Amino acid sequence: MGELATIRWFRERAMRTPNTLVGIGDDCAVLAADSRPTLATTDMLLDGTHFVLGECGPRRAGRKALAVNLSDIAAMGGTPTAALVSLGLPRRGAQRIAEELFLGMAPLAERHATPIVGGDTNAWDGPLVVSVTLLGVPGPHGPILRSGARPGDWLFVTGPLGGSIRGKHLDFEPRLAEAAQIQTRCRPTAMIDLSDGVALDLARLAEESGVGAEIDAEAMPIADAAREMNDGRDALAHALSDGEDFELLFAASPEDGARLVANPPVLGLARIGVCVRGSGVTLVERGRRRPLAATGFEHRYEDER
Amino acid sequence: MGELATIRWFRERAMRTPNTLVGIGDDCAVLAADSRPTLATTDMLLDGTHFVLGECGPRRAGRKALAVNLSDIAAMGGTPTAALVSLGLPRRGAQRIAEELFLGMAPLAERHATPIVGGDTNAWDGPLVVSVTLLGVPGPHGPILRSGARPGDWLFVTGPLGGSIRGKHLDFEPRLAEAAQIQTRCRPTAMIDLSDGVALDLARLAEESGVGAEIDAEAMPIADAAREMNDGRDALAHALSDGEDFELLFAASPEDGARLVANPPVLGLARIGVCVRGSGVTLVERGRRRPLAATGFEHRYEDER
Repeated sequence: MGELATIRWFRERAMRTPNTLVGIGDDCAVLAADSRPTLATTDMLLDGTHFVLGECGPRRAGRKALAVNLSDIAAMGGTPTAALVSLGLPRRGAQRIAEELFLGMAPLAERHATPIVGGDTNAWDGPLVVSVTLLGVPGPHGPILRSGARPGDWLFVTGPLGGSIRGKHLDFEPRLAEAAQIQTRCRPTAMIDLSDGVALDLARLAEESGVGAEIDAEAMPIADAAREMNDGRDALAHALSDGEDFELLFAASPEDGARLVANPPVLGLARIGVCVRGSGVTLVERGRRRPLAATGFEHRYEDER
Repeated sequence: MGELATIRWFRERAMRTPNTLVGIGDDCAVLAADSRPTLATTDMLLDGTHFVLGECGPRRAGRKALAVNLSDIAAMGGTPTAALVSLGLPRRGAQRIAEELFLGMAPLAERHATPIVGGDTNAWDGPLVVSVTLLGVPGPHGPILRSGARPGDWLFVTGPLGGSIRGKHLDFEPRLAEAAQIQTRCRPTAMIDLSDGVALDLARLAEESGVGAEIDAEAMPIADAAREMNDGRDALAHALSDGEDFELLFAASPEDGARLVANPPVLGLARIGVCVRGSGVTLVERGRRRPLAATGFEHRYEDER
C-alpha cells in the first residue's frame, strides 16, 4: 500500500459540485469562475495538540479538521465552495487512518456542499498532521470582517461557552446556517469565530475595529460543560477563555441588535455586551468593572534567544 | 513568544497585490473576483521526508515548500495569485524558524507576484511541517490538464533530469516562465510537473489521456547530477525515476511539436518521445523496446492489515 492507493480511494468517493471543473487527480483543482470574491482559509491540526488520536480516533479528528475551517468561512458570513486536504500520515496504519479521516469529513462536507477537490498525501515517522484549506464565497452583505464594529454596536454570541475540552471541541457544528440566518435579519458590522476564547477573540475584533468592548458577566451564556470542569476556576472564567467553542461572536448596530433581541433568528443567541470608544475589553460584574486580559489559547514557544 | 508574535511578524512583511482585498489577519483572506476559473493546489512538506531541517535549514525548506506548489500551477499552464501557509513549528526556536521560512519564501513569492494572504501557525513537539496552498488562474489556452494527449503527440521536457537529491530538489526554479513561453508558441495537449520521475509521471499523464507513450533513451536529457550519483544505477535510470526534478513534461500535436523543435521557446527543451495508441510507457534504447514500470517516488506505508 502507498499514497497512490489513498489518492485513488479518495478520488473514487469524492463528491463533486457543478463548479468542480477538475477535482482530485491533476496538478491543480479547477473551479468555475464566480462573480463574487474568493474567501480562502487554512487550518492545520496536529496530533497531541488539537486532538489526541489515541483517544478520539481518526474519524473525529478528520471531522474537526474540516469543521474548524468551515467555522472560519462562517465567521466571514460566507458559504464554502471547495476543500483541499493535506495529510501527514503515520506510516503504520496509514491507509486505514486516511480512509477514516475521509469518512469523518464526508458527511460534514456533503451537508455543506463542499467537495474535496484536491490535496496531498504523505507518510512519515511523525504523528498525524491534517491540514485543510477551504475556499468560499461571501454572503449577501459581502465579507464580514473583524474590523467593522463601531462604538455603540451590540455584541452577540451564538451559543453557550466554555468547557469545550469535554467534547464540543471535536464535535461542534460550524455555525454556517446561523451566520446565514443572522444575515437575513441584519448586517453584522464585525464577526469572528470563537476559537481561542471570548477574552482573546473579542480583543482581536475590538483591536481590528479600533473600539473598546464591555461585556456583562451576567449575560454570558455558560455551557454546562464549563460548570462541570471542577478544576478550581469558575465557570465564567472557562466561558471567557477556554477557546474552541466555535460559536460566532459578532457586532451589530443598536437598531439591528434590537431587532435580533426582539425576534432571535437562531437558537442560543445571547447579547453579551456593547462596543465603546477606546480600546481593550472590560468585564462588568455585579456593577464592578475590570479590564479583561487578552488571553486565551495561544501556541507557546520555548524561548531560544 | 508565541503564535501571535509570529502572525504579527508575517503580517507586517507580507506583500499585497491589487486583488488582495483582505490579507493576513482575519478569519479568511478575501481575493477579488476574477472572470477566469480558479486553480487550487496544496503540498505539505515534512522534516525528514521532503527536506532535512538540520542539513538545509529553514530558509531553503520554506523556499521549497512554496516552489513545489508554484510548480503545480506551472503544470496547469497557469499563473499564481495567492498563497496560504500553515506551519507546525517545533516548539524550540519556533519564532526563528518561522521567520526563516518566511524569508525563504519571500523572494520567490515576490518574483511571481504571489502574496501570502493567510495561514495558520502552530507549535508542537513534533518535527517541522510546512503546508502551502496556492491559488492561481489558467493561461491563454485554459487549464492544461494531464488528460488531453492524443496518439501521435510529441513529448517534451523542459530540462535535464535525475540526481536532484544532490541539491536541485531544494533550489529548483519552478517553470512558470517556461510554461508561459511554451504557450505563446503552442497549445500543449497535456502537461504535468516531474515530481516523482518521468517513469511514474509520464505513466500518469498517459493513463489520464488514455494513450501509451514511447520514450527514446538517447533523447533523454540527463543532468550532470545524475551522472555523479555513483550508486551502481546508471545515469539514465536516475533520469527516469529519481523525481523532484520539477521540470515540465508535456505533449503537443506534431505540428506544434515541429514548430517547438524548429524554434525552441525555452532553453533546455528536449523532445523525448511520442504518444501512441494503447497504454503504458515503453523505453526504446538502441533499437530495443522494453516496458517501463510506473515506478518512482511514492510514500510507502507499513502494512497493518
